[in-house]
Parts: sequence; C-alpha cells; structure tokens
Amino acid sequence: MNHQNPSAVLHAPQDLRIEDRPVPEAGPGQVLVRVEAVGICGSDVHYYEHGRIGDFVVEAPMIIGHEAAGTIEAVGAGVPADRVGQLVALEPGVPCRSCQECLSGRYNLCPDVVFFATPPVDGAISRLVTIDAAFAHPAPEAVTAEQAAMAEPVSVGVWACRKAGVSVGDRVLITGAGPIGLLAAQVARAFGASRVTVTDLSDSRLEKAAALGIEARRADAGPDGEFDVLLECSGAAPAFRSGVGQLARAGRAVLIGMGADTVPLDVHLIQGRELTISGIFRYANCYPAALQLIGTGQVDVDALITHRFGLEETEAAMTVNRRDPHALKAMVLPNG
Amino acid sequence: MNHQNPSAVLHAPQDLRIEDRPVPEAGPGQVLVRVEAVGICGSDVHYYEHGRIGDFVVEAPMIIGHEAAGTIEAVGAGVPADRVGQLVALEPGVPCRSCQECLSGRYNLCPDVVFFATPPVDGAISRLVTIDAAFAHPAPEAVTAEQAAMAEPVSVGVWACRKAGVSVGDRVLITGAGPIGLLAAQVARAFGASRVTVTDLSDSRLEKAAALGIEARRADAGPDGEFDVLLECSGAAPAFRSGVGQLARAGRAVLIGMGADTVPLDVHLIQGRELTISGIFRYANCYPAALQLIGTGQVDVDALITHRFGLEETEAAMTVNRRDPHALKAMVLPNG
Amino acid sequence: MNHQNPSAVLHAPQDLRIEDRPVPEAGPGQVLVRVEAVGICGSDVHYYEHGRIGDFVVEAPMIIGHEAAGTIEAVGAGVPADRVGQLVALEPGVPCRSCQECLSGRYNLCPDVVFFATPPVDGAISRLVTIDAAFAHPAPEAVTAEQAAMAEPVSVGVWACRKAGVSVGDRVLITGAGPIGLLAAQVARAFGASRVTVTDLSDSRLEKAAALGIEARRADAGPDGEFDVLLECSGAAPAFRSGVGQLARAGRAVLIGMGADTVPLDVHLIQGRELTISGIFRYANCYPAALQLIGTGQVDVDALITHRFGLEETEAAMTVNRRDPHALKAMVLPNG
Amino acid sequence: MNHQNPSAVLHAPQDLRIEDRPVPEAGPGQVLVRVEAVGICGSDVHYYEHGRIGDFVVEAPMIIGHEAAGTIEAVGAGVPADRVGQLVALEPGVPCRSCQECLSGRYNLCPDVVFFATPPVDGAISRLVTIDAAFAHPAPEAVTAEQAAMAEPVSVGVWACRKAGVSVGDRVLITGAGPIGLLAAQVARAFGASRVTVTDLSDSRLEKAAALGIEARRADAGPDGEFDVLLECSGAAPAFRSGVGQLARAGRAVLIGMGADTVPLDVHLIQGRELTISGIFRYANCYPAALQLIGTGQVDVDALITHRFGLEETEAAMTVNRRDPHALKAMVLPNG
Repeated sequence: MNHQNPSAVLHAPQDLRIEDRPVPEAGPGQVLVRVEAVGICGSDVHYYEHGRIGDFVVEAPMIIGHEAAGTIEAVGAGVPADRVGQLVALEPGVPCRSCQECLSGRYNLCPDVVFFATPPVDGAISRLVTIDAAFAHPAPEAVTAEQAAMAEPVSVGVWACRKAGVSVGDRVLITGAGPIGLLAAQVARAFGASRVTVTDLSDSRLEKAAALGIEARRADAGPDGEFDVLLECSGAAPAFRSGVGQLARAGRAVLIGMGADTVPLDVHLIQGRELTISGIFRYANCYPAALQLIGTGQVDVDALITHRFGLEETEAAMTVNRRDPHALKAMVLPNG
Repeated sequence: MNHQNPSAVLHAPQDLRIEDRPVPEAGPGQVLVRVEAVGICGSDVHYYEHGRIGDFVVEAPMIIGHEAAGTIEAVGAGVPADRVGQLVALEPGVPCRSCQECLSGRYNLCPDVVFFATPPVDGAISRLVTIDAAFAHPAPEAVTAEQAAMAEPVSVGVWACRKAGVSVGDRVLITGAGPIGLLAAQVARAFGASRVTVTDLSDSRLEKAAALGIEARRADAGPDGEFDVLLECSGAAPAFRSGVGQLARAGRAVLIGMGADTVPLDVHLIQGRELTISGIFRYANCYPAALQLIGTGQVDVDALITHRFGLEETEAAMTVNRRDPHALKAMVLPNG
Repeated sequence: MNHQNPSAVLHAPQDLRIEDRPVPEAGPGQVLVRVEAVGICGSDVHYYEHGRIGDFVVEAPMIIGHEAAGTIEAVGAGVPADRVGQLVALEPGVPCRSCQECLSGRYNLCPDVVFFATPPVDGAISRLVTIDAAFAHPAPEAVTAEQAAMAEPVSVGVWACRKAGVSVGDRVLITGAGPIGLLAAQVARAFGASRVTVTDLSDSRLEKAAALGIEARRADAGPDGEFDVLLECSGAAPAFRSGVGQLARAGRAVLIGMGADTVPLDVHLIQGRELTISGIFRYANCYPAALQLIGTGQVDVDALITHRFGLEETEAAMTVNRRDPHALKAMVLPNG
Repeated sequence: MNHQNPSAVLHAPQDLRIEDRPVPEAGPGQVLVRVEAVGICGSDVHYYEHGRIGDFVVEAPMIIGHEAAGTIEAVGAGVPADRVGQLVALEPGVPCRSCQECLSGRYNLCPDVVFFATPPVDGAISRLVTIDAAFAHPAPEAVTAEQAAMAEPVSVGVWACRKAGVSVGDRVLITGAGPIGLLAAQVARAFGASRVTVTDLSDSRLEKAAALGIEARRADAGPDGEFDVLLECSGAAPAFRSGVGQLARAGRAVLIGMGADTVPLDVHLIQGRELTISGIFRYANCYPAALQLIGTGQVDVDALITHRFGLEETEAAMTVNRRDPHALKAMVLPNG
C-alpha cells in the first residue's frame, strides 16, 4: 500500500506526531477527499491534553481532527463521477443507518456511529481521507474551504436552535461567548430571534460578540429582562442555573456546553413556569442548512478564525488557546 | 345577604372550622353550583398542616378544597338557562384570559389566575359556589359527581401525557403510586403506551396498581428495561434521578410530583441521549378529555376513592392519610 | 352623547359617507384610541364594491376599515394609566375568550369574535375608537403609526409562516405579489428561509418584489427548482395547482389568498410526496412578532405604502387600485 | 443455482403462474425468511387485473405480494445468529438510507426504495425470500404469522394516525370500511380517540365494523356531529368532500384511499376552519408499534382474515373479492 498521507497522530496526552499513513481508497458509496481545512475544537484539545473524554480513551495512536472540508479527488462505485472537484464539508459522524435511531432521523444518536477522531476512529487531519458520499456536503458557490469546515460548529448551533424551536419573536440568551456561543448566537438570529444576548466573563470575547452585532453582557452583570430560550454554551453550572432563572414562562433551555457533571434543576421553577430542558449530542441533518447560512453570510464564520497552521504545526494549533487569550478558532490546512 | 352556605374554613395550621358563609350569586357568565363532591388533594392537606405552600401563605381564613363537582343550580346573565340541573366538574383555576399566556392557550400559566383554595382565594368545600360557566365542564352521561370531581387529578395526568407526547408504542415509567401516579398510569395507557410501569416503595400502593392492571415494581428493585417517558409523581429526588437514568435515547421526563427543591441533572446523560425534561403546573384544556376518559372507563377513578366524609367531617378527611396507610383519595360530600 | 367623531360609513355598495358618530368611551379593560392610520385592504374594497363578502352582508350602515393604529387617549377601569400616549397597533378581532377555541390559543377561530368592519361590527376609520387593552399592541420605539397599521397584513404573513413551519433552510414559493405576498415573502425571509421566490403576472409588482431583494419570477415562466413551502397569496386556482406541483417531498402549502371557491387537489401528488395543505383565517398571537419585524426593519412596510388620504377622502382610497395599476397599499389618516 | 423456491409470478394481466425460482441467499446484513403468510392487498389485485398501477407497469414477470411474515431460516454476515427461528414481519420497502429523505427519518419517501412487488422488484409470495435484517421485525410473543403479516396494513393506520396527530379526546371519522378502514379505526381507538365512526355503503362491512365495537354509519345517512380527524380510506371523492365538511375547526384530514385522481378542496372551508389536509405514502417506523398493537389485542386483525389459500391457489386469492362480497382479507400461506 502506498504511503503518502501525512497525518497528525495522537499517541498519548501531549504526544502528537506527524506520521505518514496509507493513502485510503474510496470504497463503494464513498469519496476520497483532499483535506483543505480542519478546525480545532475544544474536544480535540481535550484529547490532546488528557488522552480521553469521559469513557472515550485514546488507547491506540489516532489521527486527530473532525471539523473538516476539502475537495473530492476520486469517487467510489455508485457515486457520480462529476462530484470530483467539488468542495465539500465533511460531516464527521457516519451512522449505521439501520438501527431505530437512524431510521427515525435521529442518526446522531446511533450507537454505532463512526465519528472522526473519537477513539478508536481516525480523524481528519490528513492529506487525504475517505468518507461516505452522503456525508460529504457540497459547499455553496463562493464558500471557501475554511468556511466549509466551520459548517461543523455552525451545525451545532442549527441543531440547538431546532431543539429549542427558536423562531421569529423569540428572545434568546446564550451563555458563553466561545466559538460555539458566537456561532449559536448568529444562528439564532437567522432563525428569526428578535433579541439575542450573549454573556461571558471574558471582555475580549464580549467585544467579539459586539463586533458581530450581537448584544453582549458580562455574565456577572445580573439579569436584564427575560428570555424565551437559553442556549447554554459555557459548560458552567452557574451559567446554567442563572440562565434558567431568566427564562420566561414556557421557556426552553438547551445544554450545549460540556464541563459540569451535573447541574441543579430548581423543581419549583421548572414546574411553575413549565420550562423545558434538553441537551444535544452533535447534530443530525444540519449540514446543508449550516452551509447555506455560511454561504448567504447570515452567519459570519471568518470573524472567528483567528489562527492558521500547516499540518506540520498541528501541535501548535492545539495549544494556541493557552498562549493567546484572543484565540477563538484555529485552522489546520493540511494541503497548503 | 343570606347566610346558609356552610363551608370548611382554614384559619390556621390544624385549625379548620365549619362556618356559614354568604350564599353567592352567579354573576354575568357564571353559574351557581351545588357542590356534590370534593376530593382531598395533598396540597389541601399541606395547607391544613402547615398553613402554607412555598410563597402561598394562608393569612386570612380561607375555604379549602379544589377538586370539585356539583350540579348547576342557577345561571348568570349570558349563560344558557338549560344548563340548570347539569352535573359539572369544576376546573378550579379561572385565568384572566387577556394576558399573553391566556391568549396563547397556556392559561394555566396566567399570572393572574384565580384558583380555588390557593390563598387568598376561597376553595370549594361549601354547599354552594359560583364559577365561570366555561370552567364548569358537563360530565358525560352516567358519570357520578365523585367521578367528575376526579377530573382534576385525571387532568394532571392528561396534561403530563400531552407534555411528554405519550403515544402508541411508548414505554412509560411512573415513579410514585399515589393517586396522581395511579391516574397518570391509566391515562398513559389510554394515550396508547405499550408498556406502563409504576414504581413505589409502598407494597399496598403497588398492589393497588396491579389491581388496576398496571405493571407494578418496587422502586428499590433496580431497573428493568428502558423507557421512552418518565412521569415523576413521587416528588423524591432519587426517584427522578433513577427514572431519568432508565430513559432511552430521545426520552422525555415530566416532573409532576412536588417535594424536592432541586434535583440533579446529569449533563452527560441529558446530552448523550438527548433527553428532554419538563415540568407541569396544573393543566390547560384537559377537563373535557379527562371527563371522557372517566366516562368511557378508560380511567378507573372509583378504585382510588377509599374514604368519604360529610362536610362537617372535613377535618377527618384531611387527616385520614395519617391514620390509614391504605388511604388514597378521600371525598368530602358537602351536600349529603 | 357628544358627537365629534367623524367616521367613514358604508351604507350600500359604492355608497360611502362621512358621518359624525358618538365619541365612544373606554369601558372596563378598554382603551380609547385616536386613530392615526388605517390601511385599506382588499376586503374593505370588496365590501365597498359589493356590500358583502360571502355570507357577511352589510345590512346596516357600518364604519369601514380594520388595519388601524393610533395613540391611546384614555383608559378604562383596570388598565394602567401610563398607557395613555402610547402608540398602538389595533388587532381588529376581539374574541370571546371563553370558548374552546379561545382557551386553546386559537382565538382567531372563535365563533363569537367581534372584528372591525365585518358586519355588523363597526370598523376603525374614525377619529376615535375603543378596543380591549389586550388588543392594543404597543409599537416598538421609532415605529410610526402607518408602520404600526401594517402589523395587520404582516401578521397574516407571520401566521402563514408559523402554519407552514418555515425555518432555516426552507425554500419558499409565494404565488401573488400583492401586499400580502410581498409581506409574506419578507416574513418568510425573517423566519430563516434560504430561498424566497415570488411569482405574479404583473411586471410592476415583480419589480417591487425585486426592489425588496426578493427573487421574482413571472407566474407563466414555468417552474424553476423545487420548494419546501408554498404560500398561496393570489387566490387563483391555477397558481395553487402550479405551486403545489413544485413542492418537494414533505412540502407544505398554505392557502392565504381568497378568490377561487374550490381548488383541485391531485391525490397522487398529495400522497406520493406526503404534502400538507392548510389554510389560514386571520391570525392569532402574531401582532407582537409582526411589530418587532417592522421595528427591526426585517420587514419593510414603507415600500408598500403607495397612497395616503385624509378621512374625508376615504372613498378615493377605496378606488385607487382601479385608477393606478401601481397602487399597493393606501393609507387613510383619520387625524390629519 | 439451486431451484426449489416456488413463487407466484405475474406475467401479464390475469396471467399468474406458479414457477420455481432460485433459492436466494442472505447477503451481508440480510436474513433468509421462510414465508409463512402473505396478505393480499388491493394493490396486488390491481396489478393482477391491470398489469399496472399508474406509472408502475409490470413489464417483466414479477413475483407478487408484499404483506408478508415468516420465520428466519438463515442470517447473512453481520446479523446475530440467534435470530434464526424468529418469527418476523417483513416491512416490504427497503430504502437507500443515504438520501435526504432517509436521513431525515422519512424513508418511505426515499426515491430509491426497493419495495416488494412494485415493478420491477419481486414480491414475497415465495417459499423463501431475503430481506434486510432491519426490516424483518420480530413479532411479539404469541403473535401468529398471519397476524404478523397484518402488520403491513396496521402500519398504514399507525402512520395515518401519527400524521393526523390522533390523541386522547379526538373524534375520528373514517370513510370506507374495507380492511384499511377497519384497521385504521381500531388504531385510532388505540391512539386514544374518544369517538371513532366508520362509514361505508356496504352493510356487511358496517356490520363487521360494529362487531369490532366501532360505531358504524351508512355513508349516505347524512352527517352526525363533527369530527377532529378524517381518515379517508375509500378513495372516493364524494367521501372526501363529505368528510372534510364534517371537520370541526382546526380539523385534520389524511388521504389514505386511492381511486380518485383529484378531489376538490373547498377554499372557504379550509381557510375558515383552518383545516389541514395531508396524504400518506406507505409508512415509516411503524412496524414495531403495529406489531405491539396486534400483540396486545388492541387491534384485532383476525376478524379481518376471511379467506386462506395455499401458494398454488394464489390466483384464487386474487379473485376472491369478485366472488364473495363478504371477503375482506385473503391470506396466502406459501409454506403450508
């Protein structure tokens, strides 16, 4: 087998190596993609730092990265040949498509999903990867590879807004102004929210929110008005508790951020205002909408990309958040 | 004003007196009802024992009771005269009907609702009461006054099943086999649930559940299978936690029972299985359906009525649960 | 009773007179409003031309007009005094609030609704009118009276988009580029639609659509792509049939336009693509959202207001569409 | 290849032959099933009589039958071996599972679905067939093969009730008391409908309905009350029109029956009552629920099985409806 596929391989906590891997071949129904851009997500950093997330443990060397986009180089059997050359965003989780969750349209809950860079599955920081054609989503015209890679976190925002039923007239509170919060805020606006407020404790993040035209408030500034929807993006239990307390009757909260193991639910509040609390696990059927939001400019993803690295510099990409408090989203560009 | 309206009036904790009150008159849009049956609810007992529930404090003498049914004696202006003689279940909360919650169909969340026996509003253990005609729901043929009074707790079950979206094929776990749990279980079955399991720590309550044809398990017996819906009726935090842990992917939990101030939410579980947690506050638009379920026998309410008292014996009705561990629902019959 | 309330009174087809009427007084829960602007709607013109719409016949002199906004002059009992001076949009249908439809949040379907200028109820082209305070919706800052009056047809668009479930990513076809179509198109965009296409046979209307940034096509140009949602605003049966034929699987159509008595439903299409067809009757709970869309500029209503008239010129306002093919929305300004 | 698989093969209209076909082998993810029972559906008869249904034309010999159940004889790679011996209902349409419809949970709308006995795909009246393991649904305990085969038409009823949102308290009108109507009626009852009324012009079918405990009325008897849901199972345009006219405000109609090319939609009615009309195409994710309804006895399928035939008598099964006006559902038993 031909080796000419340099990849960023995590061996152990803080032991990331660039290694050559076999060039994969597109099987039936698959496409071979030249990876142009891979965004670094908090979960990638967590694997890099700790070698695990909860029960998912990196026990064997694993290629890292899952927010990827690239260009189709070749197609497998059954895939239209004219897809070659297409710029595509890679939806990182390919489900079994035969279980009850998959057949019900909730394929993100498939117990047998194969997800880029969730152990033991290899991720996408490689020169070349293969993926099911149905999960290689064509980017709209004029969308760049970096923008297409951002379809992943934008999809998180789309899924959260769908889960919360955000629509015209809703007042939406977003706790946490990291990349997910800043994207979810823009997505909520695109869903028609009449008020979108982001809170955080970092002034530089709040400035970024304001620059995106989003109302930004310090998380410790006390409540200001009531909201119909809470999108909790910080992972901090106090943010959840405070946010839930600001919900109006029939309000809805979605837990997006990870961090706290448990959050306390005020029974009297949940009952008295008939609040609804849910959580999301990745997303399903969101990539096309996310790509459209990026393509029309309804969601500005460029403003979040603060750093770019070559494949060889993947380790630097993993640690940029430590070094630069203004870092939001780092991109690895494996082919350029 | 004519006084001939003996009523059960709570003056202070454990100070319940039978007093004569003015005979009310049906105002425009109202009906005057001869009260035939009033079920005693845990909240009534709580007021009787403690003089308050949370922020609601009995500061002035208040007539107790809110699960009432009776016969229309007279109608006010604008109400069809042929309603006189009708057996009606009295929906105890009459909302303002002009606020946003009311106009949206969520009138149970109306901040200005006037609710029987929630301080400072008088309740229904009287010989005669008035109520808005729209909240005096005609009982189906062959339904008795006692059964009609049970439309109140049955409505709680209906609202919970609607909130949880119970439908054909769902597996429903009910934690707590008190009156609400036993009714919710029957209601869930009527909504088409394929499996309905009730848990409790009281063997006598589990026997009652089994006698109603409901699968009954000890709450400490460990999990047995997974569920799509949890209806938490015990108010106990461990029951909630255990119940949520038994939910399948995309499961839904509804907090019905009162007791715990806060319950812990396992973030990883909520997110990983995309669970939805909500709570209910009374009910809206449920009385007609509840009465139908009672009328068709889909919900057997008679099995729950364990004790009956005259109006003079209201205090005994309030304390029967202390004396008789088999007590489920006590009825006060103010007119005979 | 003091008469100083000049009003536009329809006596018979094409017999519209300006008459002085009694100055009304704000009853309990009502407000007295100085009417600043009333938009003329196709239904007003229809009453003016024919004296009836279907079963609704003008049998006694009736004040015309129902798309109104104005300033609160006085408040009745129970209404906060600080509402005096508020600019409000008047939701023209005040329902009974006690029937099943009202209590369910579908108050637009209330059989006893009292609706401005639907016989025998007087309308709003008067110097002064009274209305229930809950139906006098405060305009957001910087919204003008004319804009607030447009909340009525914007509410039609909001209701239609809610009925169709328009959300991010949807492709929406609007047949008919009259005022309702042009507003519904903008509303659909605010709901997150990724593509909004308006069709009509009038080039001047299509130009208006294009000027609003909406994709505009001639209705006879043949289909171009498929859609998830059809908002039928023309009232023409062929537009409905053609529009339904362009719907993708699981598509949804809403009948908004009036005109055709029946439209043919292609059973094979409805079944084979599992389409959903519904219709709307006015709106419920839409005014606040409509006013927000106007206030933020998401919906540009100014572009549709082509003519303005004083109260004395109401008849000219009724006939402007006959004289000027470019006319879209005429405003009557009863107070100057 | 071994031939020992007698099958009922349609060559041309009214030219049905029993032929030996190759014994199929279970491929990866598939199971091999010994077919025990196949119900004859109106569409089978239509193919037999006319050689086509709409655009689907029998151009080459095709095995007929699609309502099948049987016992797993062997499993392909990746299927648990302990499924051998399982009684399963065969969901006849296996979708591509990669298109947008499939990934959204609407796999019944998959444009590439492979459906038993829809040309050119062979059906199930064979001794042995193979099918994807995910579409071979285990029958609950004590369910027979004949009953399991009935999961197909029961699934139609489940899908229709889900589409219509049938729930506790709904009044449901079913037009047409053929097998689909009689099953849909029972399913609607299981979904909690408070009133279920079936209409037909055949007295014997109405008697069958009555025997199942369903309110039965002659279709020409005139309306009796109003309904929340119409399940149109007759395929007759007048039944649809009459049924829609009996819907209450916010009512919902589902077109299930095939026959009429177009049905007229009364625009004033659809708008004035805000009715919703939809149609169904087969079903998705319904087999497990259908099998449970059969297993619990909530739906009595035995009462509908009026005739049984051996595989050799398949032609007689196709024509029994002509000969016996009381015929409802004929079963072919290919293995006994």
